[in-house]
Amino acid sequence: MLSKSQISFVKSLHQKKYRKEHGLFLVEGIKSFKEFIQSSFKIHSLFYTSEQYILLPKLPANINLFEVNNAELGKISTLQAPQGLIALVYIPKKEKINHQALKNQFSLVLDGVQDPGNMGTIIRTADWFGFKNIICSEDCVEAYNPKTVQATMGSLARINIYYEDLNELLDENDIPVFGALLDGQSIYQTNWGNEGLIILGNEGKGISDDVIKKINQPVTIPRVGAAESLNVAVSAAIFCAELVRVKN
Amino acid sequence: MLSKSQISFVKSLHQKKYRKEHGLFLVEGIKSFKEFIQSSFKIHSLFYTSEQYILLPKLPANINLFEVNNAELGKISTLQAPQGLIALVYIPKKEKINHQALKNQFSLVLDGVQDPGNMGTIIRTADWFGFKNIICSEDCVEAYNPKTVQATMGSLARINIYYEDLNELLDENDIPVFGALLDGQSIYQTNWGNEGLIILGNEGKGISDDVIKKINQPVTIPRVGAAESLNVAVSAAIFCAELVRVKN
Repeated sequence: MLSKSQISFVKSLHQKKYRKEHGLFLVEGIKSFKEFIQSSFKIHSLFYTSEQYILLPKLPANINLFEVNNAELGKISTLQAPQGLIALVYIPKKEKINHQALKNQFSLVLDGVQDPGNMGTIIRTADWFGFKNIICSEDCVEAYNPKTVQATMGSLARINIYYEDLNELLDENDIPVFGALLDGQSIYQTNWGNEGLIILGNEGKGISDDVIKKINQPVTIPRVGAAESLNVAVSAAIFCAELVRVKN
Repeated sequence: MLSKSQISFVKSLHQKKYRKEHGLFLVEGIKSFKEFIQSSFKIHSLFYTSEQYILLPKLPANINLFEVNNAELGKISTLQAPQGLIALVYIPKKEKINHQALKNQFSLVLDGVQDPGNMGTIIRTADWFGFKNIICSEDCVEAYNPKTVQATMGSLARINIYYEDLNELLDENDIPVFGALLDGQSIYQTNWGNEGLIILGNEGKGISDDVIKKINQPVTIPRVGAAESLNVAVSAAIFCAELVRVKN
């Protein structure tokens, strides 16, 4: 049985402040958990119901294991319908991005993306299309937010996420900078070259003025109908898909 | 000042049961409201704060108008941060789809899409790319769900949404049926012809078995990376974008 302090510890990790303090985040459901076990992420603790026990993969040593009942799991879960398993996973140590690691490929750069579901969907989409890196401005929603983790469907285990000062990043950068804007060249007529950063902006305000100045090539998804804009996760997906189409 | 019964009437429309009973749904924010005013939708009532009054467009007759304060608006809003205006809009009378109306174009068909945000994003994306019709299975989330309406960003005013028995629809249909499946022909090598229905499935279970049998051409978005699947609104967007690319 979980103690009150164990329950309140896990519940504290529902909040960004305590995730940051303890360097841990929640992964719920065995399917996502298996993706993290196979990755470079380190697991701190695992809470599972007896039904999930037989489904567990071989576990590395040094994981704190807790068999719990459904009521206990419900107390520590962020979901309305808990999935029988919660892992506490270490947030990877933040390293400054290595510019060399961005050469000869395309990476997504998110400027002020706020919605955790959008962030998670972008991570999942990037993983489908084989992108390795997502660079977020420091005011983007946290990738370890429970709603984001859930929306990535395990892809968070495979994508490198960086939080950087975008002005500094773009000043030090010698890779072409493409920006998703409403008045640019058609995405279908863009000469992409062999490498690039693709900048996508905030849900309401778009790309910030400082960052817009550093875009070498504004690119637009042609509009045929009447909607004023596209959802940012949808735009990101169309950019990823188009890059894969023209490069294959 | 709003009476208790007026407040409880509007609040009842937060629930599907009462939206169905009264044939009304909520549109929040002046930006979305303006899209509905310019459409064939009919407005029942309008609740607005004094700050919003000067921003209102010319209104048709026969709308019940209520100037309210922020506290009152907060009581009837579905949003954490209400936007100063709520309209009650009539749900259009449901007509059986006319198959002729689907000829010589492409339409989206949603089989069991459950998430209101996904539904709203699909409607918004369809509007951007100039699609006119979305046909939903009867177990799809309701297009008039407040979260869906919000996610459409006003595009709901411009797209024809039908709820149909998909088995019947596809039996009576003579338009080619394309299905978004994991093991189909590449979306980039598909011969689309001049018309078609594009079927997209449920978030977890995909397209139902009965409907899969009626697909003429399974189509796949090629995977380069490792994610198991794509979000349904993302898939829908990539299909819409590709159709617009090849047809223009």
